[in-house]
Amino acid sequence: MIIFNIGELAGIAPSGVRLLKGSEMKDFGVLHNAWIQIKDGVITDFGTGEVPADSELIDAQGGLVMPAFCDSHTHLVYAGSREGEFLDKLAGLTYEQIAARGGGILNSSDVLHDTSEDDLFEQSMVRVREVLSKGTATLEIKSGYGLRPSDELKMLRVIRRIGSAVPAIVKATFLGAHAVGRGYSHSEYVDEVLNMIHDAAELSDFIDVFCDEGFFTVEDTERILSAAAPFGLRAKIHANELAVSGGVQVGVKYGALSVDHLERTTDAEIEALRGSSTMPVMLPGSSFFLGLPYGRARAFVDAGLPLALASDYNPGSSPSGDMRFVLALGCIKMKLTPVEALAAVTLNAAYALGISNETGSVTRGKRADLIMSLPGWSLTRLGYNYTTPFIRQVFICGK
Amino acid sequence: MIIFNIGELAGIAPSGVRLLKGSEMKDFGVLHNAWIQIKDGVITDFGTGEVPADSELIDAQGGLVMPAFCDSHTHLVYAGSREGEFLDKLAGLTYEQIAARGGGILNSSDVLHDTSEDDLFEQSMVRVREVLSKGTATLEIKSGYGLRPSDELKMLRVIRRIGSAVPAIVKATFLGAHAVGRGYSHSEYVDEVLNMIHDAAELSDFIDVFCDEGFFTVEDTERILSAAAPFGLRAKIHANELAVSGGVQVGVKYGALSVDHLERTTDAEIEALRGSSTMPVMLPGSSFFLGLPYGRARAFVDAGLPLALASDYNPGSSPSGDMRFVLALGCIKMKLTPVEALAAVTLNAAYALGISNETGSVTRGKRADLIMSLPGWSLTRLGYNYTTPFIRQVFICGK
Repeated sequence: MIIFNIGELAGIAPSGVRLLKGSEMKDFGVLHNAWIQIKDGVITDFGTGEVPADSELIDAQGGLVMPAFCDSHTHLVYAGSREGEFLDKLAGLTYEQIAARGGGILNSSDVLHDTSEDDLFEQSMVRVREVLSKGTATLEIKSGYGLRPSDELKMLRVIRRIGSAVPAIVKATFLGAHAVGRGYSHSEYVDEVLNMIHDAAELSDFIDVFCDEGFFTVEDTERILSAAAPFGLRAKIHANELAVSGGVQVGVKYGALSVDHLERTTDAEIEALRGSSTMPVMLPGSSFFLGLPYGRARAFVDAGLPLALASDYNPGSSPSGDMRFVLALGCIKMKLTPVEALAAVTLNAAYALGISNETGSVTRGKRADLIMSLPGWSLTRLGYNYTTPFIRQVFICGK
Repeated sequence: MIIFNIGELAGIAPSGVRLLKGSEMKDFGVLHNAWIQIKDGVITDFGTGEVPADSELIDAQGGLVMPAFCDSHTHLVYAGSREGEFLDKLAGLTYEQIAARGGGILNSSDVLHDTSEDDLFEQSMVRVREVLSKGTATLEIKSGYGLRPSDELKMLRVIRRIGSAVPAIVKATFLGAHAVGRGYSHSEYVDEVLNMIHDAAELSDFIDVFCDEGFFTVEDTERILSAAAPFGLRAKIHANELAVSGGVQVGVKYGALSVDHLERTTDAEIEALRGSSTMPVMLPGSSFFLGLPYGRARAFVDAGLPLALASDYNPGSSPSGDMRFVLALGCIKMKLTPVEALAAVTLNAAYALGISNETGSVTRGKRADLIMSLPGWSLTRLGYNYTTPFIRQVFICGK
């Protein structure tokens, strides 16, 4: 199959490039008046000028073709909804008041406990189908609304089942340490998380800890990461959402694949990440929805660091999994250029899941996970006309 | 025609109610498990309980039915695009630097001058079709990128042609005083605007002046409104976007139908509006895109004033005409409840166009301008799951 008459073929990376750092991000490649060849689900060639012969030709009508989105941080397996809590937030109730009225993570945990595994799968698949239709072809999903062994494993099985049900790549992260489960003391719950790792590891690709003020300490995080290491679970840490938590530093120390959130950072976090193999991941959708500060994306990139952006899709702080809106927020609110924002939601996001050798860019030999736009679109317009529908077709492995 | 099995029928107002003020906004009516009857494009009845007999029945599948959006402030007739300027803004260029590089209103004016009337119509219709598909059934469009007699009239003719081409209500506003046209001194241009009123009035419903720092003064505004009054053109004023400009007060003094923008207000503006017939209109999309402060919606409503929200769709400061996103910003950023935000984008917005006796609410005898959602939607979810598609069908005059 060949897609030809591509006005802008964006997101081109040479073979072997696993991530883009600093000023490399603005050089994420673009070709004009291009074509791309796909065989057996893989990108086999692309270029400009004369289009090679092929039995199946698709006319891009001068539009944009780019790598599909890779969403490296979501909590989209959950039961019920928290729209009542949304009304409480609008009414000015505090987090504590909302929790007392049954809101927050523990509320999600209670509802999930009472939801069957089949029902949880079906509820989650509504969201999965939505984000796939909006151009996401790689998706990470975390546990963390179970908060007891049986329910954490139920979530992880549902995530695996989603991975089997859809053509997208789905990665599962064990986030037992999302909050202290009901009925446990803090230290009892940390012990319970350590106990869960053995069974959770069978169903997980990564381990995550909410290392932040009021949740889990740096010491808790070290214990959990040390226990997970023998199972081969690389870390992805929730860090610096609520405070300068030390989560970035502990993530780097343990070779985390990513440290995520980063709404509150100092230059010490930038220095900690420099030269590490850890991808900083910012989540502008939760900043938008909660009115938190946006992460200092510009400062990180200008300091030479790589950066990924993800949706944080979850019922409390980011009830949206729309990666195009995340890209637009990256431009409008974080002042990334459209091409930098593209690198942050594709190749660098794939790195944050350890699969940037498989997907995330227009590179010969990679999966043909691509978005073809309607005519008249350019990468710049994705951030500019941020609510106008732009997708004509999403290809996942060329289909 | 009857739509039945409506989970939530929102936006009900008694006959004769032209607008909702202060605490009335939260009482914009809602019925559950309802039906609505439409005959000859008009809402003839609605209720709960037994569904009347009818030859045409539509099952709403438990979803939401609400008034279609009314967008009372747009500049969506323009030529070209300003996405290059978007890149300049991301790069941190100032307004002055962007203007020197050919950006801003004068750039739009130059491009429009070189665009044929047919081409301008076709370019604008792409945007009109988009906003109609997203649930807008009433649309105001301003001139103001002409800035010389022939081009202002060209814009107004295109707006009238759009009104003939679509089933939506389209209102035209003469905004000759949008900026000082190229080649004029300030006072020469004000005189030119006065000269244009005679011909523009034939093609316009309203008159608007950008009464703000660096644009037109209160005195300019008074001259223009006085000259327009004999032609029956009611005023809609651009006020208080860049400074506390006096635009609100001059609007109220001349009986303006609305004063729009209001990013920068003091309690003096609230007092000026109290007891007046002027609708305050805020434009959260431009605050979002430009990073300006949001208007003080909560303070206005809590002070007992009415409030409308509009998109400000234009190529420079708000390249989005998505009224559902405007409603969501009203909730997420301005802390309106979903039902207050609904009143602001329907009935109160229709008032700001002088047609709240025709459309803008579920009221017997009004146009059947309605949105029927997909199953599973509620008004609260519109603001909460703010990027998830929700529209199943838009009815304009029942079609």
